[in-house]
Amino acid sequence: MENFIFRAPTHMYFGKGQIKHLPEILKEYGKNVLLAYGGGSIKKNGIYDKVLEVLSDFNIIEFSGIEPNPRIGTVRRGAEICRQNKIDVILAVGGGSTIDCSKVIGAATFYEGDAWDLVKDSSKIGKVLPIVTILTISATGSEMNKGAVISNPETNEKLGTSSVNMYPKASILDPEYTYTLPAIQTSAGTADIMSHVIENYFKKTEGAFLQDKISEGILKTCIKYCPIALKEPKNYEARSNLMWASSLALNGLCGSGKEGSWSCHPIEHELSAFYDITHGVGLAIITPRWMRYILSDKTVDKFACYAINVWEFENEEDKFALAKKGIDATEKFFKDCGIPMNLGKLGIDDLLLEKMSNAAVAHRNLKNAYVPLDAKDVYNILKMCL
Amino acid sequence: MENFIFRAPTHMYFGKGQIKHLPEILKEYGKNVLLAYGGGSIKKNGIYDKVLEVLSDFNIIEFSGIEPNPRIGTVRRGAEICRQNKIDVILAVGGGSTIDCSKVIGAATFYEGDAWDLVKDSSKIGKVLPIVTILTISATGSEMNKGAVISNPETNEKLGTSSVNMYPKASILDPEYTYTLPAIQTSAGTADIMSHVIENYFKKTEGAFLQDKISEGILKTCIKYCPIALKEPKNYEARSNLMWASSLALNGLCGSGKEGSWSCHPIEHELSAFYDITHGVGLAIITPRWMRYILSDKTVDKFACYAINVWEFENEEDKFALAKKGIDATEKFFKDCGIPMNLGKLGIDDLLLEKMSNAAVAHRNLKNAYVPLDAKDVYNILKMCL
Repeated sequence: MENFIFRAPTHMYFGKGQIKHLPEILKEYGKNVLLAYGGGSIKKNGIYDKVLEVLSDFNIIEFSGIEPNPRIGTVRRGAEICRQNKIDVILAVGGGSTIDCSKVIGAATFYEGDAWDLVKDSSKIGKVLPIVTILTISATGSEMNKGAVISNPETNEKLGTSSVNMYPKASILDPEYTYTLPAIQTSAGTADIMSHVIENYFKKTEGAFLQDKISEGILKTCIKYCPIALKEPKNYEARSNLMWASSLALNGLCGSGKEGSWSCHPIEHELSAFYDITHGVGLAIITPRWMRYILSDKTVDKFACYAINVWEFENEEDKFALAKKGIDATEKFFKDCGIPMNLGKLGIDDLLLEKMSNAAVAHRNLKNAYVPLDAKDVYNILKMCL
Repeated sequence: MENFIFRAPTHMYFGKGQIKHLPEILKEYGKNVLLAYGGGSIKKNGIYDKVLEVLSDFNIIEFSGIEPNPRIGTVRRGAEICRQNKIDVILAVGGGSTIDCSKVIGAATFYEGDAWDLVKDSSKIGKVLPIVTILTISATGSEMNKGAVISNPETNEKLGTSSVNMYPKASILDPEYTYTLPAIQTSAGTADIMSHVIENYFKKTEGAFLQDKISEGILKTCIKYCPIALKEPKNYEARSNLMWASSLALNGLCGSGKEGSWSCHPIEHELSAFYDITHGVGLAIITPRWMRYILSDKTVDKFACYAINVWEFENEEDKFALAKKGIDATEKFFKDCGIPMNLGKLGIDDLLLEKMSNAAVAHRNLKNAYVPLDAKDVYNILKMCL
């Protein structure tokens, strides 16, 4: 196990009706609240009205229209509004896009240069407005971590940044808020959760047994409950397990003490940067192809472990056959959850594969991944995804 | 899943040589450090010298001799020393006893009444001196939570208290510091970790699947690595997995979202209060007997789950036989780890069983346990332990 520093300072208010705690949470920071949200689904499902109701004593400035794969231009506009309105705290109501965008808005508010600097170089992040979140989709884990991913459509870049100052102060996780999600978002969100775990499960360090057991537990939770949530959208047990899995998948429990860069996320970020596709869908498409591509004598034992401990296959002598069963099960699971499992189905052809492959290698240290990847490898994996 | 609030604000510095961070951690709070420790093992294994070396710029006031099952008189003395020396921060170097005692010293320093009030009524805990810990045994999880257990030998009481102000600000977890532990402490510490998980695994709420998967993962970690640590005390992989398991077993991951009181801890606390035995040894003795005692048509499914998912028995039709296999394995495991598995071996006879049983029921709400227990039940369980 490698050395690590673990922090999880966000106060997690989990369960039905926990929004009642919102006034006491926010008043610690001040009266002026930036209410940040996305395309308006929170107006349809009643969360917006509920927020305004419990916050009747606060000054609410609205900032809506945060897009999926949130853009740096949106961050700039948000920061300007925070400065103009002397915002004390940002309330991000939504999924990872809204929360990520809010984090960087919070940082950009106090930054004199251009906000994109903070994405390119996280060391430039200093003071950050307090962030409080109300989660509406189980997916990115942004509600319990310090990271944010922002896109720059001018440069076709989608990059991550992070700062200990960007941890949300508190997050409200009410599983009932996910009852009205479109099925594809439940599936794509689950794929995102699973990808966060898989990225950390397949790392270079061996002997981080406890982290791997936790990882297997989160994956089993997704495998058990995503199909139930799809069939019965108001199944509280399913929604609550998926929601808590979202937060624990990327708060450091799975990755702490394990060395190495991620593999599928850097590749997917290029897909989203060039084609603006749904992050979780891209990950679901890439993950099993990446698995097949890196399966070798060196990795087969770990994949056999994955097949047994995650997908509950019986141990068998032929490790490669076993490993393939686990990979096949992964691909079939995403497909059965209704995710289109080919890039072609998203209207993506091979036109930009090379450009995206080069960009993936340029933006991230894929040489330090579980199995080192160069641009040619990324190209081959993307080709398998078509 | 029940509603819950999860917090884990302690910064965990995990790994070899992380003590190097100590000066930067402490200087945030001030120059005057109360160095709290136990019987002096830290002088033998070099940790004491290392602490003094890295803290050469601080004013160190020593407070040694904190006993296992730390006593309220020790808390009172410690608080007096903190006040006299204008202590800014308490550095607790040791295991759960030292850390628990330090937490309540930190609270008592600012409390005008008698320190025992803070144990009897946690709502009286207000301001607390910042606590920083250096862990020397994997066991109680106190390094990452807000709880503390203090004994009062005058009244034969051993009671828990807690406050969000008692979370350690930071904890240094260097697995190498556990290399020189006596074997029985490695075993008893592991039994304590496992008991924390088991208390939360067997609770009234169903459907907290993710919490149970994490619980099973921590138990498997203990089952795998305690025997290795006993055989090879300097096996870093074993020591690191056990140490991280210690912290995660009782930081809320296993118990959040599950309703009900604990069962074995309340019973063991009476044993320790009356006979001052090692906490983990008491838990190891009680746990399998409690399991046998509460096994019934109502609980057999959960015990069958436990047998399959923790001890890896094959599923079988006879659920009771399966459940018993899991319980037998639990008892055998503790025995194989060298724990004396009968109270008689600790010199305890049936003289005070009734008194302890009545006290257990008086001190804790055992009616709200997974299977409700009255004084007669506790007596029967203790009788099985003789």
